[in-house]
Amino acid sequence: MGSDYPPSLRCGLPGLILFLETAFILIFWFCFSKESQSTSEDLEIYPAFQDVNVLVIFGFGFLLASFKRYGFSSIGFNLLIATLGVQWAVLVEGFLFASSAGKVKIGLHSVLKATISVTAVLISAGALLGKANPIQLIWMAMVEVAAFSTSRWINVRFLKIEEHTSLMHVHIFGTYFGLAVSWWLYHSSLSKRIEKETSNPISDLFSMLGTLFLWMFWPSFNSVLIVDVMEKRNAICNTYYAIAVSAVAAFALSSLSSRNGKIRMIHIHHAALAGGVALGFSAPVIPHPWIAMILGLLASMVAVLGSHCLQTYLNSVLKIHDTCGVHYTFGLPGLLGAIVNVILFIIIKWASLSTLGYLALIEVGSFMLTTAIGLGTGFITGFILTFKLWKTLPASKYFDDQAYWEFPHLAYGF
Amino acid sequence: MGSDYPPSLRCGLPGLILFLETAFILIFWFCFSKESQSTSEDLEIYPAFQDVNVLVIFGFGFLLASFKRYGFSSIGFNLLIATLGVQWAVLVEGFLFASSAGKVKIGLHSVLKATISVTAVLISAGALLGKANPIQLIWMAMVEVAAFSTSRWINVRFLKIEEHTSLMHVHIFGTYFGLAVSWWLYHSSLSKRIEKETSNPISDLFSMLGTLFLWMFWPSFNSVLIVDVMEKRNAICNTYYAIAVSAVAAFALSSLSSRNGKIRMIHIHHAALAGGVALGFSAPVIPHPWIAMILGLLASMVAVLGSHCLQTYLNSVLKIHDTCGVHYTFGLPGLLGAIVNVILFIIIKWASLSTLGYLALIEVGSFMLTTAIGLGTGFITGFILTFKLWKTLPASKYFDDQAYWEFPHLAYGF
Amino acid sequence: MGSDYPPSLRCGLPGLILFLETAFILIFWFCFSKESQSTSEDLEIYPAFQDVNVLVIFGFGFLLASFKRYGFSSIGFNLLIATLGVQWAVLVEGFLFASSAGKVKIGLHSVLKATISVTAVLISAGALLGKANPIQLIWMAMVEVAAFSTSRWINVRFLKIEEHTSLMHVHIFGTYFGLAVSWWLYHSSLSKRIEKETSNPISDLFSMLGTLFLWMFWPSFNSVLIVDVMEKRNAICNTYYAIAVSAVAAFALSSLSSRNGKIRMIHIHHAALAGGVALGFSAPVIPHPWIAMILGLLASMVAVLGSHCLQTYLNSVLKIHDTCGVHYTFGLPGLLGAIVNVILFIIIKWASLSTLGYLALIEVGSFMLTTAIGLGTGFITGFILTFKLWKTLPASKYFDDQAYWEFPHLAYGF
Repeated sequence: MGSDYPPSLRCGLPGLILFLETAFILIFWFCFSKESQSTSEDLEIYPAFQDVNVLVIFGFGFLLASFKRYGFSSIGFNLLIATLGVQWAVLVEGFLFASSAGKVKIGLHSVLKATISVTAVLISAGALLGKANPIQLIWMAMVEVAAFSTSRWINVRFLKIEEHTSLMHVHIFGTYFGLAVSWWLYHSSLSKRIEKETSNPISDLFSMLGTLFLWMFWPSFNSVLIVDVMEKRNAICNTYYAIAVSAVAAFALSSLSSRNGKIRMIHIHHAALAGGVALGFSAPVIPHPWIAMILGLLASMVAVLGSHCLQTYLNSVLKIHDTCGVHYTFGLPGLLGAIVNVILFIIIKWASLSTLGYLALIEVGSFMLTTAIGLGTGFITGFILTFKLWKTLPASKYFDDQAYWEFPHLAYGF
Repeated sequence: MGSDYPPSLRCGLPGLILFLETAFILIFWFCFSKESQSTSEDLEIYPAFQDVNVLVIFGFGFLLASFKRYGFSSIGFNLLIATLGVQWAVLVEGFLFASSAGKVKIGLHSVLKATISVTAVLISAGALLGKANPIQLIWMAMVEVAAFSTSRWINVRFLKIEEHTSLMHVHIFGTYFGLAVSWWLYHSSLSKRIEKETSNPISDLFSMLGTLFLWMFWPSFNSVLIVDVMEKRNAICNTYYAIAVSAVAAFALSSLSSRNGKIRMIHIHHAALAGGVALGFSAPVIPHPWIAMILGLLASMVAVLGSHCLQTYLNSVLKIHDTCGVHYTFGLPGLLGAIVNVILFIIIKWASLSTLGYLALIEVGSFMLTTAIGLGTGFITGFILTFKLWKTLPASKYFDDQAYWEFPHLAYGF
Repeated sequence: MGSDYPPSLRCGLPGLILFLETAFILIFWFCFSKESQSTSEDLEIYPAFQDVNVLVIFGFGFLLASFKRYGFSSIGFNLLIATLGVQWAVLVEGFLFASSAGKVKIGLHSVLKATISVTAVLISAGALLGKANPIQLIWMAMVEVAAFSTSRWINVRFLKIEEHTSLMHVHIFGTYFGLAVSWWLYHSSLSKRIEKETSNPISDLFSMLGTLFLWMFWPSFNSVLIVDVMEKRNAICNTYYAIAVSAVAAFALSSLSSRNGKIRMIHIHHAALAGGVALGFSAPVIPHPWIAMILGLLASMVAVLGSHCLQTYLNSVLKIHDTCGVHYTFGLPGLLGAIVNVILFIIIKWASLSTLGYLALIEVGSFMLTTAIGLGTGFITGFILTFKLWKTLPASKYFDDQAYWEFPHLAYGF
């Protein structure tokens, strides 16, 4: 499809980044002021904020570093879109959720919420890994942050969904947005796995590094926004039990599903995290550890089964290429969690509420709305990202660091 | 010894894991309820719990990843037995230390203690690394957690040893249990180091990664269970001084003990941590930093000397193959710490107690009992683990990831 | 220049280390006692202390691990001089800043300040990486810690500079001390980059690991010493915004400055951190996020431009070989931050002070004094380090782990 050389990013990338940064600085200058109260609360969440920060910047970066020729881009572009996305999310959320007139107030809490929102972008980027160039990723990040915040705003304002729950939609939104974009970037050569799209033992170890950090700090991710002490404690413990079970089950299911009983590293990466994703909504309200454990087991099953069925059948039929398997790592466990959350909601509130059916419908509507907005805006974004204007990559240069990075060393030698 | 192919784990491993998980979930269901009080205390220990969690899941996993063909198994099986072990330890400790009738109460504190108990299993696994398959490791984890909790229960109930001290026996127990098991898995081919049992620079760097995380979070490990503010502060500072000195001394002793003054990476890995292990018992009561520093220096010496003498002489005579040198990293420094603790105990309480001799004897008896139980139960466990039933590995497949992991990439290329 | 074999460190290194450790233990024994009050304050800073500890031990160690044949030495010697340096800094600062007669009191606060002081040594070591042997590095650490503490003491006692500001001089001091030492260790063969002085993709990824940890925990570094709650919150948020912008800008500037629009990993490593360094002084007093963001952008520019101009022109003229580019990563952004701090000081205090000009002069004088002391003591130290006594390395053995480390594995294979 034309030249085999990837188009130079020299004009596009620096221009785009510097334009966005200048715009951000100007908006911060004229529209924002820092919060003047509640500072001790801000300091209290700082350790948990650091956990989430480690999860987003380090965990996701290294989790995605599993391709042998794409390590620099995985980690580097993750840092790029995370940091750009957080600034943009602080702005968008500041405007949408501003409580009063005048300058918008921001503090560490705003940064924390922005960091969680940006997870949607990082998940979508996982579906596009190796196929989108940084210009496309940056545009996607901008659109997706705006779309997710709008979706969240609708959920909170009109459906009266809680703040914490609305942010936990991030997994579902990110997945379906990413899959919709991925449909547009599909290329027939992706139908069979090429040599560059494989891992080697060292890149797998780097990826394991990221997985473990995600695994260890997931309880912080699920509990950081909860204010009530009792619920926060529950969220931490339940998430811990769920990911413990899903990590253990990952080994069993991986061994069970392979031909000769061997374990696949990629299953461990995905299934160990699925439990945490599934607990996102209901972690603070689950009353007994065993419920969290069963949920972790189910999420792990979904992830391993998904890895076999989706990758082999559905994706080739729908012509979707989901590079990092975000559909079964974040999307399906997220939907599972949302459904379980509704069921738990009905059970817990059974006696006390006359309007139960109505409220349960709202809950179901909420996550279906999020999925729909994710798919819709993702589809439009994907279409726009195929324009030549963004220096789209020829498929022969997919999954190759050399398209973007200068190597002083001659050989990759990885 | 029969076939050269490792037996398939397809039937054994998934069945065992899923059976255990189902059993755990059922026991949690019927016998446990979550704690309803003291939740703010639970949240207070959360940052320190995270440090210990990082130490156990990430630190131990990567510390053991020093063999060039065994990285996946070191890190993966560490995650597997740690997560399974924690669940089992929560159950066992819940029953043994239940304070009242009715359902057992569990909270984040229970998980924290379970995580520390599981360290014993990870240390034993270090002695067996590369020789035991995951089925054997899981059975060992189950027996060892139960044995350690029972030993701890005897110490706390009958010898009136403090909770913190009883948990710090974990290093000694883990080492001698592991060595006893290792005696049974000995094979004549292990007497000389084979090519697969070596490291390469990259695996050494991964191992250094784990070492540094263990090193950095060791003060949290030694202080997390202490309630008194003053003692907690002391435990943190003393542990820091001790590991600082043992890291420094490791360089000196390693250079001194090699032929041409060069430093061995393996010495740094082991000796840098020895100081923290030796401080386990006495960290909160050591009154001056210089005592902690001397202890750190001695522990470092024990580790480097042990690495030369034990590995060369004792182990070949006793026919013990201690893969990761846990004997001189955790065992001997732990014993050193226990002895110093008794001496300090006598000095500090010299004036004030008439029953000093009796109490000192109790302290000595306590760690000797732990060592004896460790050796005894380890010996029995080791015997059981040699049964063919557990699909024992032929010695030719020792230290090889390919026995357990599927490699989509053709060559290991590590 | 004589033999091509590096001199054996067998006599020198262990002797020096054990001598220093013995001396430290004795000084601790006779002159220090632990603090008996303010222990709850000590425990409060423990999480932030851990962040700084991770930054110093792990972050710097792996940041420097970017040379393909020098990974062991980068990480190992970083651990060695950091741990030795912290002990020495606790002693020196204890004597210099002792508030009363009698034994000097030390606590976790002392260790924290010592850890921050030691950053100067690690920065200087970055300039000498690959050229200095451990004996030289240890002597340098001893002299530099003493010199920095003295410089800080002059700043605090006579110029009435705040404690926090005086410690943030660490970047400037470390850089110019290191550059002055580096001038003495220059060798004509260093004028062109040799093969061993390059990275490979795996060492770049290890280096990225360190960079990300430095990046994530920089807000803790800039805020840990601040007591006022409001200022601490500001320091955290402002540092976060600054490093976010400098990470983003690093991609733009790197792509802009290369021939074909490709990104250089080394630029990301350096420029992403420059924002945090520049914020060191003014993080707590910057009133608006956009100021921090502009400062982050400027610091990133300084780092990328410096990387091109200094490395190519200035260094070859001045015969300075700055291995890790500490001049433009820490030195120039530090100076930029110091200048901006003075400007902010003048703007903020404009109305309220009559003696403004005098105070502004003091602020300027303060960082110029620090720079001057750094350059001066560094120059003398560098001269002393060229003595044959310290077993200086022949230039042919620069950047080679094999000079110091024993490799059981035959080939480096990195």
